[in-house]
Order: sequence, then C-alpha cells, then structure tokens
Amino acid sequence: MNAYIKLIDCIKSSKSILCVGLDTDITKLPKIFSSDLDSITEFNKAIIDATKEYACAYKINFAFYEQYGTDGFRLLENSLKLIPDNKFIIADAKRGDIGNTSKAYATAVFDYLRADAITVNPYMGYDSIAPFLDYENKLTFILALTSNPGSNDFQRLKVNEEALYTRVIKTTLGYANTQSIGFVVGATHPEELAEIRKIAPNNFLLIPGIGTQGGNIEKTLSANNNGPAVINVSRDIIYASDKEDFADRANEKARSYRNLLGTIQ
Amino acid sequence: MNAYIKLIDCIKSSKSILCVGLDTDITKLPKIFSSDLDSITEFNKAIIDATKEYACAYKINFAFYEQYGTDGFRLLENSLKLIPDNKFIIADAKRGDIGNTSKAYATAVFDYLRADAITVNPYMGYDSIAPFLDYENKLTFILALTSNPGSNDFQRLKVNEEALYTRVIKTTLGYANTQSIGFVVGATHPEELAEIRKIAPNNFLLIPGIGTQGGNIEKTLSANNNGPAVINVSRDIIYASDKEDFADRANEKARSYRNLLGTIQ
Repeated sequence: MNAYIKLIDCIKSSKSILCVGLDTDITKLPKIFSSDLDSITEFNKAIIDATKEYACAYKINFAFYEQYGTDGFRLLENSLKLIPDNKFIIADAKRGDIGNTSKAYATAVFDYLRADAITVNPYMGYDSIAPFLDYENKLTFILALTSNPGSNDFQRLKVNEEALYTRVIKTTLGYANTQSIGFVVGATHPEELAEIRKIAPNNFLLIPGIGTQGGNIEKTLSANNNGPAVINVSRDIIYASDKEDFADRANEKARSYRNLLGTIQ
Repeated sequence: MNAYIKLIDCIKSSKSILCVGLDTDITKLPKIFSSDLDSITEFNKAIIDATKEYACAYKINFAFYEQYGTDGFRLLENSLKLIPDNKFIIADAKRGDIGNTSKAYATAVFDYLRADAITVNPYMGYDSIAPFLDYENKLTFILALTSNPGSNDFQRLKVNEEALYTRVIKTTLGYANTQSIGFVVGATHPEELAEIRKIAPNNFLLIPGIGTQGGNIEKTLSANNNGPAVINVSRDIIYASDKEDFADRANEKARSYRNLLGTIQ
C-alpha cells in the first residue's frame, strides 16, 4: 500500500496525529529493568503496548541503537517487529550519500527493515535523495527546518532573498509527487511552519520538538492549519516515569497528547 | 593518540596519501566467492592485505553493510578489526542529528567501533556536530563540496556572494581546532578545491571522486597544493578484477595510485 494513504488510514483509525519516538537509551530506563541490553526491547514492547491506542505512528531513531553496535542493530530490528501492522513506521536515520550509496541505505530501511518512511538530509542534492524516492510506495521526509538550535546556522541563511530551508523545500518538491515527499519541520519554529504549510499544503510534515525540546502545541496546530502532519513526542512520553508505573504514565501522557493534538480534518 | 598526528604518521610510514574505500557489495564480488554474506569479510581481508603496503587509510561506508541489517553490522565490525593498527580508519557514515542523538552516533563510531575519524553532514548546524568534536583525539570530516552531481543543487547556492559550502567551511572552522576538523571535498571540483585549500590550509581534506567518479589526479594534486589530505579510491581498486586475480590486480592498482598521488611534503 502507498505509504501516504497508509498514514492517513493510521491517523483515522487511531484518531490521532501523535507519533511516539522510540529514542530508547539503556541509561534512562526505569530501575525495574536490568542493565542487560535486551531490556531495550522489553521496554519498547511495554511502551508500544501502552501507547498504541493513542498513536498513529512510531519513529525509531537509529543512533540510539547503533551506539551498541551489532547488538544494537538487532534490538532495532526486534523493536520494529513489535510495532503493530496498522501503525506507521518512520526510520529516523537522516541518511544521504552519493547515488549508489543512498541506494544501499534505501535497501536497508525499506527492503530489509520494511519501514514505511525515512528521514533524509538534503545537503548532497538530487542523486542523494532519488534512490529513496524510487520506492514509490514509501514516504521520504526531507529535513527542512529542524527543531534544534543549530537549525539557525545554515538552514536559515538567505539564498536570493529566501531562506535555504525554503529553497530546499521548493526544489525537492519537484523531485517526486506529493505522496512520496514529506518534510521535517521543528515545532520550535511555528511562524516558519505556517509559511511552509503554504508552500507544501498537501505534503506530510513530520513535526518533532514538542515536549522536552519546548515546542508549543497550540501554536504548532494553528501554524499547521489542519494540513497532513504527524507530531512526534519522544522523551516526554517514553520517560514519563522512571518507576514501576512507567507504562501507565506513558499511556496517560500519550492519551493527553492525542487529545491535545486532535486529528487532521 | 591525536588522530591528526596519527594520520600524518600513517602517511609517512606508507609514503602514501591513498585511502582505500571498502564499499563492498556482495553482488560485485569476484565469482570465486560464495554468495554467503561472510564472503564480504573474506573479500575485505584479501583487499586489505593486498593494498596495505600502499594505503595510509581505509574508509568504510556504512550503507553497504547496513543494507544487510544486523548481519551487515557484524560484518562491518569484523572488517574494521582486520585493519592494521598503523592504518587510519575513517567511518564514512555522514551522520548528523540533534545534540543528544549525535552524541549516540559519536558513541557508536568512536567508542564502540573505535574509528579514528567520521564524516558528518553540516545541515543541522553546531549542536549536530559538537558531540563528535567533543572527542578531541578524533578527526571529524565535515561535508563541504561533495563529489556527486547533486553537489550543485544546494552546496553551491550563493549566500551573501559566497557559496554555501564556503560558508559551511568558514563557520565550522570556528567550532574546534585545526586538528579536530577536516572537510570532504570531491576531486570532481578541482578549482573549488584550490579555493578551499586557501581557506583551510592546515585542515585535513578527505578527497573522494577519483576513479569511477571521474576526478582527475593531476588537477586534484595541483589544487591541493601539498596540503594535508587523503585521497580515496573505492571501486576502481577493490573491483579491479572480478576473477581469481582480484587481489593481485587490487595490489597493482593501489601501487599505481600511490605512485601517481605521491605524498604530502
């Protein structure tokens, strides 16, 4: 199934635009878990079970798994298998390399791990993104204006009177159809989010930065203007408690976010 | 040991600025190898043995391993262990994410895999690069002007009269000392390489794009003007022959490149 359609379906069935980020770090797990690496999968299972009623999607950030090497990659694979089929899977890998190399990354994420979507970095241009877009039934989220402080360093530089991130969006919109390309736009920039929504009214936006990073929900929703979007929350949900009640607290947090976020019309 | 000093030593001891890229793809191995994934490590061992006399460094591109999932990551780990201690190891991963996530990538590459250097993408700005620079004894190669056709799409955009890649170099030079930061500059852009050499005269440059990608050796050496640099060749060496003589041909190709490239003075 086409990923764009799948994501719309996932949003409808969960009545939620919440994406839960599985940025799982062994050092931050509730104390009831052992320090064995397999605790990561156990924790993820508990979090997925506790939040799936209120989430349309899960985002898994590769860095948190790669730091444990081969064992970490196995935990990543196993964690992805725990996500129900009716949830959308975003591989938050921020990849991008010369053509033949990006092709191998696309194989990793789409063929091997069977994710529905990936995040990619646009700096290396068309041939670094095209191999992901060749998977017409997948969704490729291109980094536009990210949620972190460093987004001010290059993404906002002016190129012919417009910001680089705007140029990135306008150029990459020409690379493939609306259903294949999405953009990453941080909730920490609501004014710019409103602008971007106008430039790309029908493309999915992946919006991180709510919660620990400080993005404001009302401003984000207002800026998004009911466009197709998923809003990611990671740490504020998965680490809602470091005690035995962590799953109950994650469940409550996810429900609370779902209710605050509403759905797209 | 400080990676900058180590790389200078590796160049001196091998009398070579050649870096061999282990972009190993199971479908391109000589026919004497079985289709079992472990053939990748066997092939890499043969290539490392055949080329180590003429190479100062090895660059391993993560994409070619990640495409096989957990098994691939194991092959990557095992391949890195085959590289002699007196050779410089570059993790060609092109990573970059928000601060706490880049920290996990740095852990993966520097603590876990024990590489000497990594390639990183600058699009997300300072806090996406800083966690790598926190490893003062490692070298972080920042993508500046890459070797691929897509380098024209964003890297060359004019920002206040100068190209974005120039701005990236000038800005990131301020992030850490000369010995911690290097830049990736494609051999396919010799004129710009000459400019960059002037902006960053003492930083290491990692120069890919020679061989299959078409970069010219003489123009590259002239543009580099004897600055600190390593020149990477991947496919043209490792796939020099698809027959039983692949290691001998790789040895000859590496020697030939070493002799053509010379060393830095």
